[in-house]
Amino acid sequence: MKSEYQVIIIGGGPAGLTAGLYAARDRLDTLLVERGIFGGQIATAELVENFPCFPDGLSGMELGERLHQQASKFGLKTLTADVTGLELQGKQKVVKTSEGDFRAEAVIIASGAERRKLGIPGEKEFTGKGVSYCATCDGCFFQDKPVVVVGGGNAAISEALHLTKFASKVTLIHRRDQLRATRVVAEQAQAEPKIEFLWSTVIDEIAGDDFVRELKLHHLPTGRKSALEVAGVFVAVGLDPNTGYLKGVLPLDENGAIITNEKMETAIPGVYAAGDIRRYSGMQAITAAGDGATAAMNAGKYLAH
Amino acid sequence: MKSEYQVIIIGGGPAGLTAGLYAARDRLDTLLVERGIFGGQIATAELVENFPCFPDGLSGMELGERLHQQASKFGLKTLTADVTGLELQGKQKVVKTSEGDFRAEAVIIASGAERRKLGIPGEKEFTGKGVSYCATCDGCFFQDKPVVVVGGGNAAISEALHLTKFASKVTLIHRRDQLRATRVVAEQAQAEPKIEFLWSTVIDEIAGDDFVRELKLHHLPTGRKSALEVAGVFVAVGLDPNTGYLKGVLPLDENGAIITNEKMETAIPGVYAAGDIRRYSGMQAITAAGDGATAAMNAGKYLAH
Repeated sequence: MKSEYQVIIIGGGPAGLTAGLYAARDRLDTLLVERGIFGGQIATAELVENFPCFPDGLSGMELGERLHQQASKFGLKTLTADVTGLELQGKQKVVKTSEGDFRAEAVIIASGAERRKLGIPGEKEFTGKGVSYCATCDGCFFQDKPVVVVGGGNAAISEALHLTKFASKVTLIHRRDQLRATRVVAEQAQAEPKIEFLWSTVIDEIAGDDFVRELKLHHLPTGRKSALEVAGVFVAVGLDPNTGYLKGVLPLDENGAIITNEKMETAIPGVYAAGDIRRYSGMQAITAAGDGATAAMNAGKYLAH
Repeated sequence: MKSEYQVIIIGGGPAGLTAGLYAARDRLDTLLVERGIFGGQIATAELVENFPCFPDGLSGMELGERLHQQASKFGLKTLTADVTGLELQGKQKVVKTSEGDFRAEAVIIASGAERRKLGIPGEKEFTGKGVSYCATCDGCFFQDKPVVVVGGGNAAISEALHLTKFASKVTLIHRRDQLRATRVVAEQAQAEPKIEFLWSTVIDEIAGDDFVRELKLHHLPTGRKSALEVAGVFVAVGLDPNTGYLKGVLPLDENGAIITNEKMETAIPGVYAAGDIRRYSGMQAITAAGDGATAAMNAGKYLAH
């Protein structure tokens, strides 16, 4: 495998793959590095209803596959590897990966964001033993069992609705007294008899033996403590940008997101960011795809000079 | 028809329809006003290869129809009318149309951009009599006849390629000595035997009788003048933002485009712009769609306060 390209894209979600589609169609010699499956975060979504031009929706997995197929058709090359570091100073940037070093004049960073942890006792210990961050992946393991979803945004509601297909009961635990989710989504959840809501409540501890058995809860307004028997806990409290390998390399905001302008340019010429990893991202597949196209078009202009 | 909504969207291209999809899914009472067909400029494209998740491409008309269908499914209301004026000061904005006045607290302006004219003698006189701005619409009228395309960008090449299906010969006249088009597109045109190129050349006049018969040409580097017999002239030299009704209402840049920040906010609270009409637009269906989603999400936040 050769090691020099015109453009290297980091991340194979909607932002990275759309950047790849645009760069490849512009006949730029482009390598996309993805550590897992194509599609990014949205690949775990069972039904995506709001990606434009799909009136009946499509699965997140299909979205990723279609976009990968389209970009590959125009010549995008892809590599499965972890990115371990970047050297962005100088004309030739270096992308260090688990499969070796690669060089390009332009780099588009689109490695997305990662699910946020609760940071409570038992969470790490029981991960994969009842604690999950992906209902689409793990829901089927909880057939006829009671589960909890933690969070109040669209992702949490989407997880809860998905879990009603498997679980005997889904309790949605939210630290606030109302949902942050889009109204149409929130209404769906409130109309679903299998879903119950525990408002203004946090989990102090996840307890069990080989598997999760019980949650120790804490009602914020009253301070009252209680316990809830469950078999599973699905955590959906947000995403953190995957910028660990970028600390000290690029300016990040207080949440660790990459700062860009509306052309998706970062502080370093030839380096672009797109999608959930950038500050003010819309955190939607469609806004990420738009970002990716913008980044690739501007990378093309940069390379032409 | 009622006259008050939470959100009014002006324009039914990818930006406006995606804004409509997002606003309607967020249960915002939303009216979209479009003067013509859904899809906007891209509705005239025979094959769109770079809208993500369509590996085999789709027609611009189908793109518009699918998106209209999807947004309508979630409750978006649409009206066919011309927008004649806007009153954007105050909490309730007024959108004046050929079908009456409508009011909303948030307005998303996504009325796109219009094809630029050459501004030469004969252009206006022969429009519809050999002068056209849309090969998809008018190409079939030039079966086995010689035609010219004016321009050097993606739109011009796309028009030229489309016309090879009908015309006996397609001459592409460009004022510069190289194309601005994406390389993959430019290469397609250069490989097409029916297409010839006239570089560094402008048209001084379009002449004819009932129909276009001849172009008076002018080679810029040498000043040499010549004539070319043709039956049709397709003008593809760019787009102007459709902001005529916005002069004095909103700050525009030197090209007449609306100035926004990355949240698609304009200078007036509650007023957003998205797609080709805004400054620094990517001028792509996918970037317009991303803009539309961003504008609608931020309009939703504005209305919640």
